[in-house]
Amino acid sequence: MKKKSKIRLYCHHDLSIGSVFALEADQSHYLCHVMKISLNNEILVFDGVNGEFIASIAQISKKSVIVKIIEKTRPFIKTPDTWLLFAPLKKDQTDFVIQKATELGATCIVPVITQFSITEKAKTQRFLAQAIEACEQCRRLDVPEIKEPVSLNKLVSAWNKDFHLFFMDETLQADCVYEVFNHAQSSGIRKAAFLIGPEGGFSDEELSLLRNSDFATGVCLGKRILRAETAAVAALACWQAIAGDWRI
Amino acid sequence: MKKKSKIRLYCHHDLSIGSVFALEADQSHYLCHVMKISLNNEILVFDGVNGEFIASIAQISKKSVIVKIIEKTRPFIKTPDTWLLFAPLKKDQTDFVIQKATELGATCIVPVITQFSITEKAKTQRFLAQAIEACEQCRRLDVPEIKEPVSLNKLVSAWNKDFHLFFMDETLQADCVYEVFNHAQSSGIRKAAFLIGPEGGFSDEELSLLRNSDFATGVCLGKRILRAETAAVAALACWQAIAGDWRI
Repeated sequence: MKKKSKIRLYCHHDLSIGSVFALEADQSHYLCHVMKISLNNEILVFDGVNGEFIASIAQISKKSVIVKIIEKTRPFIKTPDTWLLFAPLKKDQTDFVIQKATELGATCIVPVITQFSITEKAKTQRFLAQAIEACEQCRRLDVPEIKEPVSLNKLVSAWNKDFHLFFMDETLQADCVYEVFNHAQSSGIRKAAFLIGPEGGFSDEELSLLRNSDFATGVCLGKRILRAETAAVAALACWQAIAGDWRI
Repeated sequence: MKKKSKIRLYCHHDLSIGSVFALEADQSHYLCHVMKISLNNEILVFDGVNGEFIASIAQISKKSVIVKIIEKTRPFIKTPDTWLLFAPLKKDQTDFVIQKATELGATCIVPVITQFSITEKAKTQRFLAQAIEACEQCRRLDVPEIKEPVSLNKLVSAWNKDFHLFFMDETLQADCVYEVFNHAQSSGIRKAAFLIGPEGGFSDEELSLLRNSDFATGVCLGKRILRAETAAVAALACWQAIAGDWRI
């Protein structure tokens, strides 16, 4: 028989055993009208700070569902620092990047405006809602931070050197991802940021800016031209595999 | 200035320099009415067998565009044998898997029916059209084969042992992807197949069938629960990086 997994919700409320509070309106609606929960049913909740808990449905009213935290199921673990910097794409592709990046352990997602960006708009509130939904689904305990859009020039000039910046370079002039990430792993780089350009790639000026930054390394993801959203997912997956939290 | 890339189309016609032929109706429509091409404009064409060529627009009529092959731009290279076996998902996610798998170098895509599959339907003609479009975009020279759906039991019992089967195992009992793929690479495994279960995972019977097959190895993609389509993309990207054609 197929195992049925528990409903899992992110709560803005600070969680501890014994606390009793009302869920948000949309969560209450989802539980009552979509999932048809009953009194004393159990769900999983997490708050991005204190870990994961079992909450029991204590009261169902017209407007809200009240839960009581009854047991801790997992202690909080912070996902290792992994940043995704990407040029916003069309709606569906951007949605896709946010969802997949969250599943793949991005801890901070930054929309970056480059010379060939197709849009400068970034609906950061919408991105956050999608990231939260992905966390609920993939059992993450923390929620990635979504930053406001920043230009590539500004990003590079104000770079936090605790992080190493890996930029996906389509020109075939960079070393292959295996080599670069393995070297990063053995050099002890643990805070990593991945920059993916827009569909049109980086401009020559942008490439030379990146190549001349001592905190940045180009990465080659093969000879096929990947779509921007594919490159984002591939870069994160390869990092987790070779140097990140999939490697045990 | 942004480099404008040439239009690139897959042709069922066997290509060689000097040949003249009419493009398919939908391609002709696309060139005339979407891309507004003119006589003597050049496009790139490939046929999945003979490489890539420049074709010049020789004639534009109401119903079709006739091209003439004038120059070879790339010799044919076959993508190394890489199979993706996946349980069909909802429409958008399946579309996504086909597109991304093509970009990531899958040479054969097989819809697999498992115990917890949400659907047994697989629109293989639609999949092929999507794969072709992805090839056009990512500059691949060959088109992946799309197989008709097969049950997991049948797939395993008729397994072609030239291929090694890697199945994504969410139970945390398998070795991490870095270890498994690195070992495969150093053991000389070059023909690889990747099996991704449906959203509900594999059943216990399926897992023990796979674990007891000497041609199969489980792979762990970390502790976060990846959606099926994320796991498919991640598995292919990690393979290409660690043991496939991204490693140079």
